[in-house]
Formats: sequence, structure tokens, C-alpha cells
Amino acid sequence: MAPELSKLLTPKSVAIIGVSESPTRIGGRLFKYLTKHGYKGELALVNPKYKELNNVKCYPAISDVPMDIDCALVAVPGKFVFPVLNECADNNVGSVVIFSSGFAEMGIEGKKAQDKLKELARTKNIRICGPNCIGLVNFNDNIALSFSQFMETESLIPGNIGFISQSGALGGSMANRAQDNSIGLSYFISSGNEADLDVSDYIRHLVLHDDRTKVIAAVIEGFKDGEKFIKVAELALKHRKPIIVLKIGETEVGKKAAASHTGSMTGSDSVIDAILKQKGVIRVSNYDELFQTASLFSKNRIPEGNRIGILSSSGGAGIIMADHYTKLGLTVPEPSKKTIEIASKEMASFGQVANPFDLTGQIFSDPEMFKRCFNYFIDDENFDIIQINMSMVAGQGSVNRALQLLEVAKDSKKPVVAWWAAGSLSNPGIQILNNSEVASFKSPDRCAAAVKALVNYHMAAKKSAKEEPANTNNDMPDLSIDKNKVKKILDASDKSLSEHESKALLNLYGIPVTREKIVNCVDDAVNFAEQVGFPVVLKIDSPDILHKTEADVIRLRINSPKDIARSYKEIIDNAFLYDPSAKINGVAVQEMVIGGTEVIAGMSQDPQFGPIIAFGLGGIFVEVLKDISLRITPLSKSEAKNMVRQIKGFPILNGIRGKAPSDIKAVENLLLRLSRLACDWKDYIAEIDINPLIVLDDGQGVKALDALVILKEK
Amino acid sequence: MAPELSKLLTPKSVAIIGVSESPTRIGGRLFKYLTKHGYKGELALVNPKYKELNNVKCYPAISDVPMDIDCALVAVPGKFVFPVLNECADNNVGSVVIFSSGFAEMGIEGKKAQDKLKELARTKNIRICGPNCIGLVNFNDNIALSFSQFMETESLIPGNIGFISQSGALGGSMANRAQDNSIGLSYFISSGNEADLDVSDYIRHLVLHDDRTKVIAAVIEGFKDGEKFIKVAELALKHRKPIIVLKIGETEVGKKAAASHTGSMTGSDSVIDAILKQKGVIRVSNYDELFQTASLFSKNRIPEGNRIGILSSSGGAGIIMADHYTKLGLTVPEPSKKTIEIASKEMASFGQVANPFDLTGQIFSDPEMFKRCFNYFIDDENFDIIQINMSMVAGQGSVNRALQLLEVAKDSKKPVVAWWAAGSLSNPGIQILNNSEVASFKSPDRCAAAVKALVNYHMAAKKSAKEEPANTNNDMPDLSIDKNKVKKILDASDKSLSEHESKALLNLYGIPVTREKIVNCVDDAVNFAEQVGFPVVLKIDSPDILHKTEADVIRLRINSPKDIARSYKEIIDNAFLYDPSAKINGVAVQEMVIGGTEVIAGMSQDPQFGPIIAFGLGGIFVEVLKDISLRITPLSKSEAKNMVRQIKGFPILNGIRGKAPSDIKAVENLLLRLSRLACDWKDYIAEIDINPLIVLDDGQGVKALDALVILKEK
Repeated sequence: MAPELSKLLTPKSVAIIGVSESPTRIGGRLFKYLTKHGYKGELALVNPKYKELNNVKCYPAISDVPMDIDCALVAVPGKFVFPVLNECADNNVGSVVIFSSGFAEMGIEGKKAQDKLKELARTKNIRICGPNCIGLVNFNDNIALSFSQFMETESLIPGNIGFISQSGALGGSMANRAQDNSIGLSYFISSGNEADLDVSDYIRHLVLHDDRTKVIAAVIEGFKDGEKFIKVAELALKHRKPIIVLKIGETEVGKKAAASHTGSMTGSDSVIDAILKQKGVIRVSNYDELFQTASLFSKNRIPEGNRIGILSSSGGAGIIMADHYTKLGLTVPEPSKKTIEIASKEMASFGQVANPFDLTGQIFSDPEMFKRCFNYFIDDENFDIIQINMSMVAGQGSVNRALQLLEVAKDSKKPVVAWWAAGSLSNPGIQILNNSEVASFKSPDRCAAAVKALVNYHMAAKKSAKEEPANTNNDMPDLSIDKNKVKKILDASDKSLSEHESKALLNLYGIPVTREKIVNCVDDAVNFAEQVGFPVVLKIDSPDILHKTEADVIRLRINSPKDIARSYKEIIDNAFLYDPSAKINGVAVQEMVIGGTEVIAGMSQDPQFGPIIAFGLGGIFVEVLKDISLRITPLSKSEAKNMVRQIKGFPILNGIRGKAPSDIKAVENLLLRLSRLACDWKDYIAEIDINPLIVLDDGQGVKALDALVILKEK
Repeated sequence: MAPELSKLLTPKSVAIIGVSESPTRIGGRLFKYLTKHGYKGELALVNPKYKELNNVKCYPAISDVPMDIDCALVAVPGKFVFPVLNECADNNVGSVVIFSSGFAEMGIEGKKAQDKLKELARTKNIRICGPNCIGLVNFNDNIALSFSQFMETESLIPGNIGFISQSGALGGSMANRAQDNSIGLSYFISSGNEADLDVSDYIRHLVLHDDRTKVIAAVIEGFKDGEKFIKVAELALKHRKPIIVLKIGETEVGKKAAASHTGSMTGSDSVIDAILKQKGVIRVSNYDELFQTASLFSKNRIPEGNRIGILSSSGGAGIIMADHYTKLGLTVPEPSKKTIEIASKEMASFGQVANPFDLTGQIFSDPEMFKRCFNYFIDDENFDIIQINMSMVAGQGSVNRALQLLEVAKDSKKPVVAWWAAGSLSNPGIQILNNSEVASFKSPDRCAAAVKALVNYHMAAKKSAKEEPANTNNDMPDLSIDKNKVKKILDASDKSLSEHESKALLNLYGIPVTREKIVNCVDDAVNFAEQVGFPVVLKIDSPDILHKTEADVIRLRINSPKDIARSYKEIIDNAFLYDPSAKINGVAVQEMVIGGTEVIAGMSQDPQFGPIIAFGLGGIFVEVLKDISLRITPLSKSEAKNMVRQIKGFPILNGIRGKAPSDIKAVENLLLRLSRLACDWKDYIAEIDINPLIVLDDGQGVKALDALVILKEK
């Protein structure tokens, strides 16, 4: 059952345990900030040293507090946290925020102490935020339960963005910046070490139980429970509350630091990237984009498509925006004929109505002309989103321009975004936009990235609404699987299956493999070869020899019985030389597949997210260019489609330079079968590698030439 | 001879022609701003309407002004500009700034009017800034010759960055932002339509004749004269004055807008990108990076290498910076043993000395510990650059932190960069850093990009200092060329050379080509085939059939005289069917080269920058992945080396998956020969295409299998 968070996030009564009169101590700062930002509920202070502080009564212990406490703030040294938590639980406190450090971030001993907190929370049903966090703030209700210096801010600006950060210091910093730009928040939650509640719990609550939150922004160092996060992401997409994530620890160096910092296990970044995309979570690529993107989403205007109309008071600014949008794959189309016709009348002889549309210096001599041209663009059916660029206009001039902009924008449903290129001299106008329904940006690249995210999200959301969600049976090719046979193959082996066994397993899931037979003498080999037709391939079949090329136990293009005899002997000899103790099932005689394109398909298990399906072109594409697409299972039909089309080398499959198109549908089908196999046997199979898989011409299907299944430890 | 710009940039006397008493008109704003920012030279106003304005004498015409004028500001309607300029020239005015629009940006008529200004400037030796510009500002001498609203700024902050912008509105906007962050400028020059002086002239002056300018920042929409810019870039590199460029109009949409905006012809962006890199010009990828990068360069601390040590008051911030640096290819190494040993003593039990080094909350309880740890890092031989991350610390706390930072940084020569993650609450500290020798950034990605640019620049500069610059003879393989033979081949053809002629031409420059012969009967073909050895290749040889595969006039792997006879007939028949009027030189009999890796090498001419050499792997690498490296000619040895290594597919040439390494030296040698050929005959040859060029195993050389030379119109 999902935890109930309202006592933590909207407490009607708060206790500060370990309160202090000194504003330099955590307990002192909590008291100061709670009061400063106007907490309206009941407040109890707890510290045996004081009778009262600033006219608020102070109790020796939480058990002495006469009223029920929804949320207790725990600001005591690490070693006292457990007994305090225990006392809170016994006194019916609904939730606690534990600021104290000295837990999982300290290493093994700290981890043990933290696990004790977790256990207590579970057994006595008390919710914990933290430990090792800077607390949380509810902006709509003026509840400041944080000692972050961000609380030095004059006032809290409420809004519809819920912000959760695993990093406390960054969280406070980002909230400060967001509010500088008048970006309103519903909550700021520093989740700390996540002994009890984790980022997925908070998101789930904001999605399902908080109407004031429309957009979720999160700073994530690592996922503690990948599957839980995925379910929450699916919920959020269904409820159209976009989740925007800054995932840090992208590189090996960064990840190493992340691990030492939070104790979260972080998976491969490319896996996380693929999963977030697949589940409709918006991932920003840098620090500033988190709130700039969230701000655009919070304006709640939904674009119908990806066509941008750009109006610019500077020619150069128009070019810059057109460059950014085009590079991101959005469209900057010509204005409609109608727009060109009407707008041309506005322009002096040298002006040109185009997209981007440079309003030139005329905008200074004829300010109303800006409004008229903006209206033409907003009415133009060729544009889904209108981009306005402002440049150097100072003081009252900037105010006038901003007011004009808002006057036109308010009557439309199209998203309107503004980039203001100037600095502080334009601040009066910029501030007006910051407080409006128009998203305003300082940097053109961040602006374009946010618009791109908005377009992508709504396109994906529309699409997902039409589709049934993927599940282990749905979207899977129709096939009846003999699970007993599968189980028999898996049970028969220890660490990995031989090539022949691996292929047999794949074939039970309808994956086409080479026609082949394991033989134990040359005569049988010749017989099978004549049956299947020359040329054939001979390989050793052994679960112990995984690297057959290295062991030199493969012979290709065998054209005669005589060649079979010679190759057979060489293979047996080489296998023995390579590993005298290897278990040898025999020699596999395989049909030799001619033509087609080499690809690879596979499955591996991510420690956080379970089975992952991988696909790419073979050889240098994988090895040199790392041109691979990844998806979490189960895979839906459309995901399988996207997965194939996403790789850079896709044109090769699609047919170039006179080459016939490959059987792409058969590849998609194979990926779905692989996904089903992975889901059905995820507790047994660690990895599957089909390499190479040959994709034949369109209509001819695919065929696994080699395969390897590695089992989980039993 | 290079133009003399001191009268324009540091005028001792200024006239405002077309002055106005209204501060809304250009002539009025110029007067207001010049006075406001404290111009100390002589000032003459010119307008027949006034006797004087604000106690400054006003003359009817420039010819009435009694003193010599260094610089006249021309704020009259477009149609009066030419007579006014003429009058200025006749009255010994040294330079003019023409603000008026109505010139090349207006189309053909305007271009003609602009050409007249240009001619006058040349014949009467008067320098023009503009027309259609917003003027220029000399920050060190308080000379404001601009009507930009940026001049509403309270005061001008002088510095060592010279800023030139082809876009006026963007220029004013960017200067405003730079000064908001206390980034000082030496000049801001809006170059406008560049009728006379262009961006290269200004840069040249700042490099050679202005000691106060150490760094040059430029916004460029298009290059009017590519070769001139390249010479200036070489000069700047030699004088170690970095040029940092924001080149706008990167995409086709952007370029189209750029062309309509300035009338500059803009070349292919990938060519410009390659040239800037090759010539040591730093190209930033977005608007904000221009001044943020320039600011880092202006601090004048030179890194010895690319190893970054990161100190962070927030674990998350450290991870973010490590991610950015690692993705950009910089190094984030472990601290030295010594550092780990000393710094460990500073840390509470749970802290860990690593890189990034998270100082944790301890930094609040023990502020001096920050300084000590910073000192350990700055002294660590493992680090070339120190990155400090600051997070949420408000007011006086931020001031203290900034002062500590500066105290340590001042005693070192290593570059120190700071990223301050918080917002306005940390402004007091941020402002202290902005005014210091430590470059301070708001965004971690911009910070890392600037550091990367700094490292790259100084590495390239060091390298270039050791090398002789490339020139048409230097760095070229030693070979004596029979130029008469070359000329004969070029003169004999009209539009393009046949394959055989093209190869003959390449061979005169020492480029290996297939052994081959043009024959006109089957017997000769058989004779040559027996001489060169089977298998052979037969192809039509015709300057009129450029697409031989399409015309089906190539036969590969011919193994016998009988096959030659059949193939010969087919080729001749198909050639006739394809183009009955094609001139046929005969049939080429070529050796068939077995093995090797297919690459392409070529030359094309950029309208601005002349001959460009291109190199890439063949087939899908060029067609699908666009994996090509480009360089301007002449090519130096090290450039040829880099060019080969820069492509993504380089590992394929270098030997992977058991494949032997290819003869990379032979490729470099070929590129140098191609460069020399291109330079020698750039007035004759439009394009050269060697496709495929086969690169054999190391030591075996290269061989051109096919080649095409396209000639310039005669």
C-alpha cells in the first residue's frame, strides 16, 4: 500500500525536537524560518533546556506535548535519532523529518543505523523524510520545515510545480533561482538518504493526491527501486502530470562520486536514459533547464504540433532561434500566404515577411505594428507555437513591449514563449513576463530545449493514450509456448547454454534460427549437410566454450563431404587444445545463410530496472560507434518499432545505395518475442546475445546465426 | 595596406551630423549618450536647424566646422548619406560612423548605393563603420558613439575584451549582459553592413595596435572575405589574442534568414566550423557562452594541461561538474596520495577525500577548513585547473566564502573557476567573484565549455608555436611536378576530365592510382590484362559519363580473355545507349585491387575560403553518418594527421576485430599531395573526387580506384 503523506506535507501541527535559541544551529534555524514564513498550524517546541522560546511553549520531551503532532522535525545528533523516532512513534506522531546526518552516507555502520530507522518506520507506521536532508517546504500553505539558507528568502512564491531533490544543497540553490524568476512551487522536498520515503513515493503522492501540483521537477542521483519508479512514471503519464528530471551521475566519474555521496546504486546511464524516454519522463541535460522546462510546462498550454513561428525585434536573434529549433528537429516553416500578404503591408520597402520574421527598427517607430504582426502569426495555421524574441530595450520601453506581448498572447491557446536577449536594462519588462502565462527565457538554447521537451511530451502522451500499455502478454506475438520444454532446457545447464541449446530455447519463442543438427561423427555430418544443402557451417557445441572464434572451432563455407571430414577433425582437436575439460555436446552442422544484413539483439538485466532489450547493427556499428537502442521490458509494439528506427544506421536496414530494404517487421517481431522470453524467465536468465542475427530482404524474415544464453546463479 | 582605425576608435574630436534636440531620434540619442558617458575630446554638432544645443555650438554643415574631425557620426536619412560622406572626405574628416539604414539590407538598389559609399571610402581614403549599424563604444576612454539603448546603462565598465558584432541589436543586448556580470570591455563595435571596414579589419587592429585588448569576442553572421579573415586569425594566434566567435546561421533555415538579414554570403557551416578549429579560433555553441568564455580567457591564467580538481560544498554539484568535464573529454583524476593523506585529517569520519571532493556540511561549522582543503588541491600536481562549486549560502555568508576563495586563489598561477549554484541570495558573494581574477559561472555546462575552450586553445597555441605554418610548399611531400604536363591535361578538357585523365593528373602529384590502360580493341585489352595479371576491371573512359554505375559501364573481376571480349562489347553498347553523343576515349583496363579499406578523399572550393580538402570512410560512413573531416588548404603535416584521426570511424583504419592496421601514413601523404594540387591549380579545378581510394595494410600504401576532376568554367 502506498504511504499516506498528507501529515508530512500539510501538517496541522508541528513539533521541533532539539529546538535551539541560536539561529546558527539547525534547531534554531528551523524555528526561525517556520515562524518567519508564517506557519499557521499548532507548534510545539521540544528541548529540556528551555521552558519557552519567543513565547512558544517548550516541552522536555515529545511525550510531554499535549496535542497530537502531525509532523516532528528531528534536529538532534545522529546517535539520538533512533530513540527520538521511537518516542515519536509511541506518541502518535504522524511523520518526522530527520535532518541529522551520520547514516548511510557514513558507510556500513551508518547504513545499519539507517536500516533500524527504516524498520521502525515500517513496524510502527510512521513516515520519515530523510535522514541527512534539509527538509521540506509547502509553498501554498506557508509551511517551511527546512533549515536551508534558501529560507532567508523574503517570501515564498506558491505555484504548481512540485520539486523533489535527492541533493539538499542543490535543491535549495535551485529553488532560490526558480523563485528569482517568479517560478512558483507547490513543494520543495529534500529526500535525503530516503530511509523510508523515496522520490517515487513523493511523486506518487503529488500525482494522485495533490491537485495543486501540475508539474513535477526532480533532481535524482540514483534510483533505489527502479520498478517502483517506473510504475509511478506510468501513473504520472496517465494523469498528464509531466515529470521533469535532472539525473546526475551520467559519466563513470560522476557515478562514482554519486555512489559515495548517497549510497544509491546507479545503473548504466544509457539504460536510464532509454527508460526515462520510454516512460514519458522528460530528462533535461543540464542544471538550469530543470526549472526553465518545468516553468514552460506549468503554463499549461498544449502545442498541437512542432511548427514554430518566430517573431524577432533583432534579425540576429531570429537566426539564432531558427538554428536551435532546426538542430533539435523542430520545424520553422514559411508563414502562410495569407500572413505574408497582410504582414507585407506593414513593412517598409526593405522588410521581408518570412520565418523568422525580423520586425527591424520599425518596431521602435511604430510599436503597434508589433502587436498586429504578432496577431497574424498567432492566427497562422502553419504555426503551433509562437516564439517572440526581444532584444535591447530599456526601462519603460521594455515594460510597454511586455504588456503588448501579453495583450496578444492572452487571447490565444497556442503556447507563446519569449526569449529576452538583453540584460538588466530590460528587467522591468522581463519581470512582467515572468509573472505571466508566457514562459520567458534568458538563453535561446534553453528556450528551444524546453519547447522541444513540451512538444515531445504531448506527442508521446497523445500516442500513449491511444495505445494499450505493454504488458507481458499484450503486444506479444501470438504464440503458445511450451513452458515445460523451456524449463527443461534451463534446468539442464548450469552457467550458460551451448549455442545449440540457446537456439532451441529461442526457437520455442518463435525466433527463427539456422537449421542445424548436433552430430557426433563425420557420417552424420555429411548426411545432414546433404539434407540441408551445401555450403554448410561446422562449429563445436559446448556450454563451456563461449568464445568460438578465439578457440578456432568454427568452419564456414564447407562445400563438400571431404571438407566436412577435415573440418570436423580440426574442430574437435582445437576444442580439446583450447579447454581439455570442456563439456562437448558434439559438432553442430548448420545451413550457411547467404546475404542479408548483420544485426545484434540481446537482453541483459539491470540491477534496478530488470530485463533490458538491446538492438543494433552488427560489427563496427556496435563496437566503434556504440549505435545501440535500449528498452525496458515488457516492450510494446510501438516501442519495438521505435527501437529499430532509432539507431543511426537505420537507413542501412531501410535500403540505401540500391540495396533492397530488409525485413524490418521481422526484426520488430523478434524483439517482441525476446521481450516476452525475458519477462517469462527473468528469474532464470541473466543475458541473451543473438549475434549475429541476419536480417534478410523484406518478406524473407530474420535468422539467428549464433546465440548465447547466460543463466543466473541458481 | 591595412586601414588605420585609431581615428575611428579613439577620436580626439567628434562631430554629430544630423544632431537633434529630441532624445527619441538617433541624432538626439547620440548627443545624449556621448555627453552622459563623459566624452572628453572636442565635440562639434552639425544641423542647420540649431545654433547650439545644451551650450555646444552647432554648425550648418561639416564644412563650417573650424577644427579637424577624427570621427563624424552620420545620422541623416539614407538618401543624404552619400553627399554628407563626400563632404566629410573633402573636409579632412578621418572616419565616419553611418547609422542610417537603406543600403544592402534593402536589396539591389540599396546594394548599389552602398557600393558607391565603398568606392568613395577607397578613393578619398576615409574609413566607414556601417552603414546600418548602431555605432561603437570605447570603454577605456569613455567614448560612446552609439545610439543603442544599452547606453542607458549607468556607467561603462572598462576591460580587456574587444567585442565586434555584425548584429547590432544582439551586440547591445550582449554587452548589457556582460556588464551586468562585471565583465569589462575595451570596445563594442557594431559593424553593420560593412561597406568599408569589416570584422577582419577591426580584429586586425585590436590584435596589432591595441594593447588594452587581450581577448576578442565576435558575433558573425557571414564572412565577406574568407581569406582575409584567415590571415587575421593566424595573426591573432601568433600574438596569443584569442578570438572567440558566435557564428550564427548554422542551419539552412538560419542561413536563409542570415542571408536576407545582412546580405553576407554564408558558406556551409561544417566548412566554417572546420576552418575556425584549424585556425585556432574558438567557436562557442550558444549565445551566453560568448562572454562567459571570453571572461575566462580575459583572466589570463594559462592551464598546463586538462586535469581538473573539483572542490564542492555540495556533493550533487561536484557530480554535475565531473559529468560535464568528463563528457567534454577533460580529465577528473584522483588527488595525489599526499593530498589524500593531508586532507583526510580535515574530514569527519564519514568524509572521503576524492575528486570531486565533497566538503559536506562541515564547511559551515568549520569555514577555515575550506581554505585549507582548497590549498591542498591548488598545490596538487595532479591538477591543472581548480573548480570550486558554491551552493546555497546567503548574504554575509556568501561574502565570507568568496573572500576565502580569493585569498587562496591569488597566490597561485593555476586557473581557478567557480560555479555558484544558488540564486539571488548568494549575490553579495557572486558579485565579489565577478570583480576578481577568478572566472565565475552561473551554469555548470557553460563553465565546463569555457574551461574546455581555454584548455584547447592553449594546447593548440603551444603546438602551433613549435610548427612552421603551412604554406603551399612547406609541409608538402618532396616531389618535383611537371607543371607543363598538368597544364596540358587541364587544357585538353572542357568541363571535367575522364577517369583516366583524372588519375593521370593525380599521378603527376605522386598519388598512386591503379595500373591501367585505355584501349580501343579487345586484343589490346587482353594483352594489357595478361601483362597486369587477372582478374582485371573494365570501364568506359569518357569525360561525359560521370556516373558509370548508373550507365552500367563497369565490369569487375574479369578472369579470362573470353570474359574480356564479352564485357568490352557490353560496355561499349551500354555507353552508347546511355549517351549517344558522349565522347568516348576508349575502354580502361585496370588492375583489380583486392582487400584494403575503402575511403574517399576530395577537394571542393568554398566561395569564401577557397579549396577545402575532405576525407572520410567510404560508403555508409559518408552517406549515412556524414562522418567527414574537412580542412582548408594549404594543409600542414599535423593537420593532415588530425584530419585522419578525427573521423569517428578511425578505429576501423587503425585496426579492430583482428583486422590489420591500414597504411595511415600513406593517407596523410595523399592528403598533403591533394592539398598541394588544389593550391597549385585552384583557378582551374573546381572539384576533385577520389572515390573509392583503397587504403591497404600498413606499409602497402593507398591506391585510387576511381577519380573525377571537375574543372572551373574557363
